Amino acid sequence: MSNKAVLLSNSGKPYINLSLRDRTGQVECRVWDRADEIAKRFERDDIVEVSGSAIQYQGRIQLKVHDVRRAEGEADLADFLPVTRKGIEPLWEELQALVKGIADRDLSRLLRRVFPDPPKTETARRFRQAPGGKSMHHDYIGGLLEHTVSVAAICRFLAGHYEKVDADMLLSGALLHDIGKVGELSYEGAFEYTDEGRLLGHLYMGAEWVAAECARIEGFPADKAMLLKHMILSHHGELEYGSPKRPKTLEAVLLHFVENMDSKANAFLEAMEDLREGAIWTDYQRMFERYLFAGKKK
Amino acid sequence: MSNKAVLLSNSGKPYINLSLRDRTGQVECRVWDRADEIAKRFERDDIVEVSGSAIQYQGRIQLKVHDVRRAEGEADLADFLPVTRKGIEPLWEELQALVKGIADRDLSRLLRRVFPDPPKTETARRFRQAPGGKSMHHDYIGGLLEHTVSVAAICRFLAGHYEKVDADMLLSGALLHDIGKVGELSYEGAFEYTDEGRLLGHLYMGAEWVAAECARIEGFPADKAMLLKHMILSHHGELEYGSPKRPKTLEAVLLHFVENMDSKANAFLEAMEDLREGAIWTDYQRMFERYLFAGKKK
Amino acid sequence: MSNKAVLLSNSGKPYINLSLRDRTGQVECRVWDRADEIAKRFERDDIVEVSGSAIQYQGRIQLKVHDVRRAEGEADLADFLPVTRKGIEPLWEELQALVKGIADRDLSRLLRRVFPDPPKTETARRFRQAPGGKSMHHDYIGGLLEHTVSVAAICRFLAGHYEKVDADMLLSGALLHDIGKVGELSYEGAFEYTDEGRLLGHLYMGAEWVAAECARIEGFPADKAMLLKHMILSHHGELEYGSPKRPKTLEAVLLHFVENMDSKANAFLEAMEDLREGAIWTDYQRMFERYLFAGKKK
Amino acid sequence: MSNKAVLLSNSGKPYINLSLRDRTGQVECRVWDRADEIAKRFERDDIVEVSGSAIQYQGRIQLKVHDVRRAEGEADLADFLPVTRKGIEPLWEELQALVKGIADRDLSRLLRRVFPDPPKTETARRFRQAPGGKSMHHDYIGGLLEHTVSVAAICRFLAGHYEKVDADMLLSGALLHDIGKVGELSYEGAFEYTDEGRLLGHLYMGAEWVAAECARIEGFPADKAMLLKHMILSHHGELEYGSPKRPKTLEAVLLHFVENMDSKANAFLEAMEDLREGAIWTDYQRMFERYLFAGKKK
Amino acid sequence: MSNKAVLLSNSGKPYINLSLRDRTGQVECRVWDRADEIAKRFERDDIVEVSGSAIQYQGRIQLKVHDVRRAEGEADLADFLPVTRKGIEPLWEELQALVKGIADRDLSRLLRRVFPDPPKTETARRFRQAPGGKSMHHDYIGGLLEHTVSVAAICRFLAGHYEKVDADMLLSGALLHDIGKVGELSYEGAFEYTDEGRLLGHLYMGAEWVAAECARIEGFPADKAMLLKHMILSHHGELEYGSPKRPKTLEAVLLHFVENMDSKANAFLEAMEDLREGAIWTDYQRMFERYLFAGKKK
Amino acid sequence: MSNKAVLLSNSGKPYINLSLRDRTGQVECRVWDRADEIAKRFERDDIVEVSGSAIQYQGRIQLKVHDVRRAEGEADLADFLPVTRKGIEPLWEELQALVKGIADRDLSRLLRRVFPDPPKTETARRFRQAPGGKSMHHDYIGGLLEHTVSVAAICRFLAGHYEKVDADMLLSGALLHDIGKVGELSYEGAFEYTDEGRLLGHLYMGAEWVAAECARIEGFPADKAMLLKHMILSHHGELEYGSPKRPKTLEAVLLHFVENMDSKANAFLEAMEDLREGAIWTDYQRMFERYLFAGKKK
Repeated sequence: MSNKAVLLSNSGKPYINLSLRDRTGQVECRVWDRADEIAKRFERDDIVEVSGSAIQYQGRIQLKVHDVRRAEGEADLADFLPVTRKGIEPLWEELQALVKGIADRDLSRLLRRVFPDPPKTETARRFRQAPGGKSMHHDYIGGLLEHTVSVAAICRFLAGHYEKVDADMLLSGALLHDIGKVGELSYEGAFEYTDEGRLLGHLYMGAEWVAAECARIEGFPADKAMLLKHMILSHHGELEYGSPKRPKTLEAVLLHFVENMDSKANAFLEAMEDLREGAIWTDYQRMFERYLFAGKKK
Repeated sequence: MSNKAVLLSNSGKPYINLSLRDRTGQVECRVWDRADEIAKRFERDDIVEVSGSAIQYQGRIQLKVHDVRRAEGEADLADFLPVTRKGIEPLWEELQALVKGIADRDLSRLLRRVFPDPPKTETARRFRQAPGGKSMHHDYIGGLLEHTVSVAAICRFLAGHYEKVDADMLLSGALLHDIGKVGELSYEGAFEYTDEGRLLGHLYMGAEWVAAECARIEGFPADKAMLLKHMILSHHGELEYGSPKRPKTLEAVLLHFVENMDSKANAFLEAMEDLREGAIWTDYQRMFERYLFAGKKK
Repeated sequence: MSNKAVLLSNSGKPYINLSLRDRTGQVECRVWDRADEIAKRFERDDIVEVSGSAIQYQGRIQLKVHDVRRAEGEADLADFLPVTRKGIEPLWEELQALVKGIADRDLSRLLRRVFPDPPKTETARRFRQAPGGKSMHHDYIGGLLEHTVSVAAICRFLAGHYEKVDADMLLSGALLHDIGKVGELSYEGAFEYTDEGRLLGHLYMGAEWVAAECARIEGFPADKAMLLKHMILSHHGELEYGSPKRPKTLEAVLLHFVENMDSKANAFLEAMEDLREGAIWTDYQRMFERYLFAGKKK
Repeated sequence: MSNKAVLLSNSGKPYINLSLRDRTGQVECRVWDRADEIAKRFERDDIVEVSGSAIQYQGRIQLKVHDVRRAEGEADLADFLPVTRKGIEPLWEELQALVKGIADRDLSRLLRRVFPDPPKTETARRFRQAPGGKSMHHDYIGGLLEHTVSVAAICRFLAGHYEKVDADMLLSGALLHDIGKVGELSYEGAFEYTDEGRLLGHLYMGAEWVAAECARIEGFPADKAMLLKHMILSHHGELEYGSPKRPKTLEAVLLHFVENMDSKANAFLEAMEDLREGAIWTDYQRMFERYLFAGKKK
Repeated sequence: MSNKAVLLSNSGKPYINLSLRDRTGQVECRVWDRADEIAKRFERDDIVEVSGSAIQYQGRIQLKVHDVRRAEGEADLADFLPVTRKGIEPLWEELQALVKGIADRDLSRLLRRVFPDPPKTETARRFRQAPGGKSMHHDYIGGLLEHTVSVAAICRFLAGHYEKVDADMLLSGALLHDIGKVGELSYEGAFEYTDEGRLLGHLYMGAEWVAAECARIEGFPADKAMLLKHMILSHHGELEYGSPKRPKTLEAVLLHFVENMDSKANAFLEAMEDLREGAIWTDYQRMFERYLFAGKKK
Repeated sequence: MSNKAVLLSNSGKPYINLSLRDRTGQVECRVWDRADEIAKRFERDDIVEVSGSAIQYQGRIQLKVHDVRRAEGEADLADFLPVTRKGIEPLWEELQALVKGIADRDLSRLLRRVFPDPPKTETARRFRQAPGGKSMHHDYIGGLLEHTVSVAAICRFLAGHYEKVDADMLLSGALLHDIGKVGELSYEGAFEYTDEGRLLGHLYMGAEWVAAECARIEGFPADKAMLLKHMILSHHGELEYGSPKRPKTLEAVLLHFVENMDSKANAFLEAMEDLREGAIWTDYQRMFERYLFAGKKK
């Protein structure tokens, strides 16, 4: 359940507004009877069982709920939160293939350490589950993994397309650029920022974390650590988007563009999924600050 | 010759400042003797023959010129202006291969008309020669062709990478996006904006030109013309960069990112070419508004 | 009807929210009974007949609607949409007088072709009906005509006020500057942007259309067409307001200021019309991003 | 003399750079001999007599000066500073006619007091001489008067063009809007800001001055004083242009547009005056942040 | 009562939404019965007596109101509006101590005139009552006094901390910087801007008022008046925040920072007061455009 | 020597432009004779011995240099670079007193570790020498120490002035906020950014360094480390000034204001030091983007 509010109806009677969410999407619900009693049984972000009947209004389902109770036993989060359509396992395999493509010995050691196969570390396990964002793009379980793999695959192509690119550095930066999101967002229940996420942000958290990992690898060259941290810190491209430094290496410049493009492309594709029946324009997209043209269906 | 100025020395004697340019680069010159007489022999942007001796100061050559005269007969511009290192013929062949990859019958007809092989139209001939910009990026003969081919090749990759992309539309937009530059810049001599270029700009000029070409193809669908024009007009991405509309289709969004990235990547690579002896940071880059890190040479 | 929404009341019963609009203004309505049945009878933007009773709350009328049915036969749109208070015929005559004042032979031919009297072309007919905007200013039938005539009349004055102004060019630009709005907005029913309007915009559409008209006039000088297109493209004054080029001719500079001032003056006067009983300050005006002072009534 | 600098030539010998200015324009000069001795004779902004010979370089005159001495006796400033081409007397008469057109008794009393005919007050005398700006527009003796009359004449036209305009208030605001410039700029010698001009600015100074004048007129209505002060304070239109409040009355909105347009039109016309021989584009105009198109001469 | 709205419930029955406010805070109320009758008895901003019963929802009290009637006799505003927790009298004494610390004879005379003790002038009386703002910071009775004293105390510290500060000038500017708010806001009932406040603003009003006060003191030096007015006009720091001039004296620079910091610190402390039960983050703060971290309670 | 350039005089003869700098200031020099030979003897940023004669032009000294040679033996940098007028030792003592005032046991341990007395660590030694900036403010040896002490002293005052401030946290943040500058700037010779300084910046470097220090203190609480890092990262106040997060705690908000004010106050005082003879306005100040008013000398 991603939202819960007890309200007072105009006749002075309390009722509950709920948003229920599972992996297929989200639905608005209202509990009209015994609201006070039922409201005490659960909290926001709990996994719940619900009985009720559906009504359709204006092309959207609304649920009139009769009863709600907390789910017993261990429920699998992935059953109740939206999950990447591409599958966590296939994406993980693709990521492993990208890691294996890194020839530079130092970077290869670092990446194998961060992304061990099987994913036995806490970070690796969380990395596979984490969403790519709170609401803007890749906002589903496995979204961070999907985004990372997509960015890295495009970067691999560009390393061959342009001259003078340090392919291993670009690919490593692509794979690590959002690692800080593992700690910036909590996703047990709804996606929320952690205190550290709000006060420090995933750019800083990622760079600090990479600094600490590099320090644990004996003989890891200082300049490679510096270039990786630069790529992480600068990947938002401009100061006003939260990067404390703008990209100043060729690899950082390319990563910024690819990262930005992939976020926007994903958001565009998601908006096309949400298209209203018969519409050729999406609803207003806050991320783009515009309506998007989905085009005529054939 | 890309610059000419007659100045008065402190001792009250006139001298001439020249910038000479050929395909390998540019050099500053000074004519100390007979400045008034020599100055009358030629104009800025003329092709000239020069005799003189070179002095090296601070890692840069300066030429002390004894005599200057206008070149006689027909000189080949490409001998005197910087030219793409990738070669116009190989790039043209790559462009033809990209055009051949377009399956949509309407778009294919349009593209073959715009880029006939051999390049028998005035537009096609100018398109092969034109620079990609006045000074910011791809500012050499064949630069527009090089930029177009690079953008289109990346777009072709992305059409396979992302779902739901209209590959033919994206590729067509990529190939046509800067066609207006054929008329925005003159490049007989130094690169300069035309009156039309300054008053209307290459976005408008390109879209209007595509509109006219589509109108000449019987039965060309209005919505495809509209989508192409949208891609051309919106490829600068934001109003403040001169696009009267921001990208609103998936193809326009992708094209904008690729186009921007390719301009920046080319400018970065050019800045690395100009690196001073022993430097690891470039001079200040106006396009990036920052210094760029070229990295340690191995 | 400019808005229709079926909602669920707190007691779980559906009701309908409507906005009805005729030439005198707009009123909010609610259908409490038989909402499902009634909702099926009509769509948004239909012309409808309504029975109900009015209630006044907080100085605004609200309608409690008993029944709604679609209007039969051909209804005249102008009866149901707000229309310019100045009258379409008087404005058209004023426009014709302005056109007759153009001495330059080329421009005169162009303008007579665009605005034939009587208005026998589709463009001329639509130009007389079109609103000047969706909601910001001149948002009523005939608004485009009213705005155009007002701008042109001020420009005629300025052509006499300042030296060195090309009076015919300024007047022609004023008369043509918003011609693209004929295709940018649809006004059958509520005012809405067309697909082309959203993807290309009225600046581009107007310039392309003028380009095509000029091409159809034998011997129309290229530089005059270029200057006209520049005025149309630059009349928003700044890139961030959607002009791909800023004004660079004296006539374009003047047109921009007059056009902007006339839009704002109209919006100010409309806001004064909407003043609440007894108020001396208007409601918050989004176009101005401020409250406006209407002043004390005598 | 508007500029004076003693410099050291490369051979270690001092020389003087001067800018001489009279009503027809400005010329660069150099004193090569006896620089130290000559430099002591005069200060920047002095009126001087000069002997020397002219050299022409690149279409501009440069003066090689042999001797300089301070002018003796009383020289008339207007002989040495650029002056409005329209003549101070004709402009003053036009202003008096505008003042006479004000019907409102309170405003009429105020305006006759501020602009007495003949101009017997210090303020009126300075108002007739003051430049309209330091360098951007109307930067010549009488420029403030010329600008004021032009703005007021356009406002008088607009008062008839639009409904609901308080014509007397608009005209009064137009005539008073830049009155603070009388104290913001000094123009004895080169145009310079006064301390008060830099610390308080002409918007504040004008409004405070009008407040004081109104206070001296018995029974002057407080709300009319408030509206006048609002017009003066808001005439730059936006906070970032130095207006502490944006225009919120119809008259203030119109005044802002007219005032801005007139400044730009004057700057455009001045730039056309300065056009280089044969050029159709002006030099880069800092006020417009662009090159302007002067067009082909017939 | 700071807000009153008669609304129509979904069942078509009118009810009243009220916001009641006293010095301890604000509470939302609803009148469900006899709404039409009760609504006629009072207006927004009246002082009222209310009977009803409280319900708690989501950690906030809501009042179900049975009856409302206007308060009879003279009620003390300070009983019903929020008041500074620091007490008006102690703050006034602190202000008097600060005034007494001014050694400069001119400034001392001015300040004693503006803030006489006891506060016998209308301005002094209003200054003690006025809020520091409408809603952003210090929005309670005595808020202006509290803010002024806080700013002045910090400035007194800084005058000792930094070299070359004119302590008397800095302190005088601090004490006078917001004097214009006395007339910008009305606070009889809810806090609202006056017409003059909206059209001229407290920066202008304060400077004009100080100018007039200085003019009434014989022999008050013009340059001290100018520096005081500069501090008042520039204390918002940037043009876009409504200062027509940016700070250009050391005292004005310091005052701007202190004034800004004190507003933000007060707003932060107020937001911490409003913290929801158990929360460690505040609600979204419009003034800061972010959520604030209140930290863990021990 | 802070600058060295070999140029070609108009007569074709090479000469050298030098800027010599010692603790008292900077002077421009020219070497006219034997330039080629002399130029080979030294590099930019070397400490040199110079013989020559001084000439005064326009209130500034210029040096005509006869000979230059590199200084032999170990020269003390502090003799040749400008140094804080307040003395490094007194400032260090003041800092130690501030550190001793921290009561919180964790923070006290951290601060004593970072600033050991005597300064036996490399960091502490560099911290005492480092400039506060490259050119904007506190750009002299000991400037970082002076700035830190000044900011911390003001913060200590504010901790007593405002309620609810965590005094120890605020003081610790003040003392550590610029610790990253120890590695961002090199000051052996002229002040220059290091590679790490340009690619990562002192905000990131300081936070990472504090993170590492905290990690070395057993049992250092994670939330205190987080709050310290937040203060360091956010002290520039806005994203566009390079802070990846804006201040979200009361202590971070206060620190940001004090830090900004102290930088500006120092820059203002430095500009007053550089005042030209007789001037009351400073030269244009790039940091303020304005001229500053130094006021009349008594």
